[in-house]
Amino acid sequence: MGVADLGLPVDVPSTALFTDHYELTMLQAALKAGTADRRSVFEVFTRRLPEGRRYGVVAGTGRVLDALENFRFDEGVLEFLRERRVVDEETLRWLASYRFSGDVYGYPEGEVYFPGSPVLRVEGSFAECVLLETVILSILNHDSAIAAAASRMSSAAGGRPLIEMGARRTHELAAVAAARAAYIGGFASTSDLAAGFRYNIPTVGTSAHAFTLLHDTERDAFRAQVDSLGRGTTLLVDTYDVAEAVRTAVEIAGPELGAVRIDSGDLLLVAHRVRHQLDELGAKNTKIIVTSDLDEYAIASLAAAPVDGYGVGTRLVTGSGHPTCSMVYKLVARAETSDPEAPLVPVAKKSVGGKTSIGGRKWAARRLDEEGVAEAEVVGTGPVPDELSDRQLLVQLIKGGEVLAREPLDAARDRHAAAKAALPLSATQLSRGEPVIPTEYVKSGSGS
Amino acid sequence: MGVADLGLPVDVPSTALFTDHYELTMLQAALKAGTADRRSVFEVFTRRLPEGRRYGVVAGTGRVLDALENFRFDEGVLEFLRERRVVDEETLRWLASYRFSGDVYGYPEGEVYFPGSPVLRVEGSFAECVLLETVILSILNHDSAIAAAASRMSSAAGGRPLIEMGARRTHELAAVAAARAAYIGGFASTSDLAAGFRYNIPTVGTSAHAFTLLHDTERDAFRAQVDSLGRGTTLLVDTYDVAEAVRTAVEIAGPELGAVRIDSGDLLLVAHRVRHQLDELGAKNTKIIVTSDLDEYAIASLAAAPVDGYGVGTRLVTGSGHPTCSMVYKLVARAETSDPEAPLVPVAKKSVGGKTSIGGRKWAARRLDEEGVAEAEVVGTGPVPDELSDRQLLVQLIKGGEVLAREPLDAARDRHAAAKAALPLSATQLSRGEPVIPTEYVKSGSGS
Repeated sequence: MGVADLGLPVDVPSTALFTDHYELTMLQAALKAGTADRRSVFEVFTRRLPEGRRYGVVAGTGRVLDALENFRFDEGVLEFLRERRVVDEETLRWLASYRFSGDVYGYPEGEVYFPGSPVLRVEGSFAECVLLETVILSILNHDSAIAAAASRMSSAAGGRPLIEMGARRTHELAAVAAARAAYIGGFASTSDLAAGFRYNIPTVGTSAHAFTLLHDTERDAFRAQVDSLGRGTTLLVDTYDVAEAVRTAVEIAGPELGAVRIDSGDLLLVAHRVRHQLDELGAKNTKIIVTSDLDEYAIASLAAAPVDGYGVGTRLVTGSGHPTCSMVYKLVARAETSDPEAPLVPVAKKSVGGKTSIGGRKWAARRLDEEGVAEAEVVGTGPVPDELSDRQLLVQLIKGGEVLAREPLDAARDRHAAAKAALPLSATQLSRGEPVIPTEYVKSGSGS
Repeated sequence: MGVADLGLPVDVPSTALFTDHYELTMLQAALKAGTADRRSVFEVFTRRLPEGRRYGVVAGTGRVLDALENFRFDEGVLEFLRERRVVDEETLRWLASYRFSGDVYGYPEGEVYFPGSPVLRVEGSFAECVLLETVILSILNHDSAIAAAASRMSSAAGGRPLIEMGARRTHELAAVAAARAAYIGGFASTSDLAAGFRYNIPTVGTSAHAFTLLHDTERDAFRAQVDSLGRGTTLLVDTYDVAEAVRTAVEIAGPELGAVRIDSGDLLLVAHRVRHQLDELGAKNTKIIVTSDLDEYAIASLAAAPVDGYGVGTRLVTGSGHPTCSMVYKLVARAETSDPEAPLVPVAKKSVGGKTSIGGRKWAARRLDEEGVAEAEVVGTGPVPDELSDRQLLVQLIKGGEVLAREPLDAARDRHAAAKAALPLSATQLSRGEPVIPTEYVKSGSGS
């Protein structure tokens, strides 16, 4: 199933131009040199987590599968490349029939990761794999950054629902992907209609200050809203005086009022006062939703406050201080010759200035202790040690160009909750620290 | 001209779902209450610049115009809203014929802004204006954040060209907008082919470490690249030993070698060594391009180094620490009744927790000193003071729903360079500070 079939509000006829210029010039040079067909293995990994973070969250995998299926060079794209002289005619002919025919393995979406985890592995000819670098990294770096922030906020919120409402703080399509990643990370809903449309995420929302200001009085505004949206609606109570607004709200909607929203001020103090007031007015079931530049720390600080839900915007869609991950896409092995049977040679850039890589096609497994708690991310080349054979993290996502592993978004969301729950308890501490489990490297052959 | 006419790689049939759920529920309630038709004025502004920044850069205006032209509720979108019961049938009927018919004024793209600057003003019925909040803010908050970072980097680079290469570090479509914003901010080119296709920005790129690793030796890789791309190409010289790579590069390409790229290590030191070596080898015109987690500070630190160009990725597309602006879209005035002739009433949320707004439809002008240097951003309601009448910042962008002010991207880029040049010199200091000119408010009527 392609992207178009899912009813994307923004149709993606091709993802082939979400590509850096140099991918195509490398292709041209390799075609001419006769090296383009060498079987190659590229891996996506990070050298480090964002500073102080305890774990990362793989998100975007499903979008990568969509992007790879739609990675085609149609006439318009080829004409652009020809006019701009990006590549020569031989390369354009090669691109015209491009279709990824290789294999992709990866951590399933929602899984956690650590420095060095090979979260995605792409195998095929150099030519067909090298072109995919940019779009794969764009998706994984963005979506994983948002999911990691969402996961921390979800821990901070305990069982209280989180609403994603950051669309206005990020690019309009990044917002859709952010809502998706937030859902994987544990958010319950989004304000973004495009995300509801594209990914079937529950959407919510009632009114803004503008609605109150449009009317002659706050009372008129509340009455208009309740008349139209029902008593179960959420009334925004901080346009003028909060206490007066709460009184008016319950007068108009009665104790069946669904919720009130507080969007400014000292939320801890105001939430307590509003709860007290609502209870006194008999609106004991009316909920309190808070929104106002929340992040995981602000959410945690409201743990003891009578708050029933959190709306989070800016800090979510900007990854709470880490708007991108540092995932890279590196050639780790390639065949000695263009012969399909030629053996693979591990390759790696020499360490200069700290940009180290480890060559070779890798497996990864998460070792658990006796209690079933994760104790190490084990990454290696060569055979997988027997004791880790049932703890392997990579699954096949694409086989011979065909997507194998499409799944509902809820599967990724559930997987993330389970993966996080299997980490040591300190994983969900908000304070800065080291990755919650170490990454151990096993050298080729030593484990079998 | 619509977006589709420009050959967008990702076709945007409609932007109507880049909208928060509550915009539609507010619409429904206002339609029922009979207040939806009240003439309204919404303004986009920020209460503050990102911490330490001296000025902001308006970017995204052109994209806003595209988005507003394509803001339509087609059958698929309406069906989604019906199925999900976002709004009632009356509202769906209203949406089916939606077409923005109002007026939009704004700072022209590339202009600088300060706290309180009314960078965009949207006028029409409450109903038609309120729906546009989310998509307008998404675009302006994202694009302006990137342009501001680009502008600082451009100052730091002096006259040396900057290449935008951050596509892999942000959402694949945010990347296209980021390349556009970077170009406005002063960048010369981008690695992102989609940005070249969509916005005609020059694209550049030659090769990555993978290309060297694909080949049996670095020499083979360089020869393959030069054979295919010519002697004017840029060879990446830090896969193994830089000095050896430079020697090999000049051996193969001769002194006509276009450039070498250094992507790791102590760039200041390495650039000096490489320049010395290139000169000794007779490659006096071979340029040195550096790339490696650069930001405006790293660029500035290389001012005295023999560097000919900078490639900037992560820190550009994440706004160099400030990935979003804090622009808001606020109702500042609305008619007393639905009568089209009814007078406008200024409105504003009461200050709670610092979220202050100033009611009323505003003008803005930049006051210059005797030398022609900006000395204040003057914002007011009511008549414009005579002495500022020729310094007004807002221009009409849309009239009666028709876009008036479409322009080539170079116009915005040139405007930004001119606007930055007219600021006090301290605007381009990289160190943290206050906005480089203060914002002064002139009360209604006092200036005429």
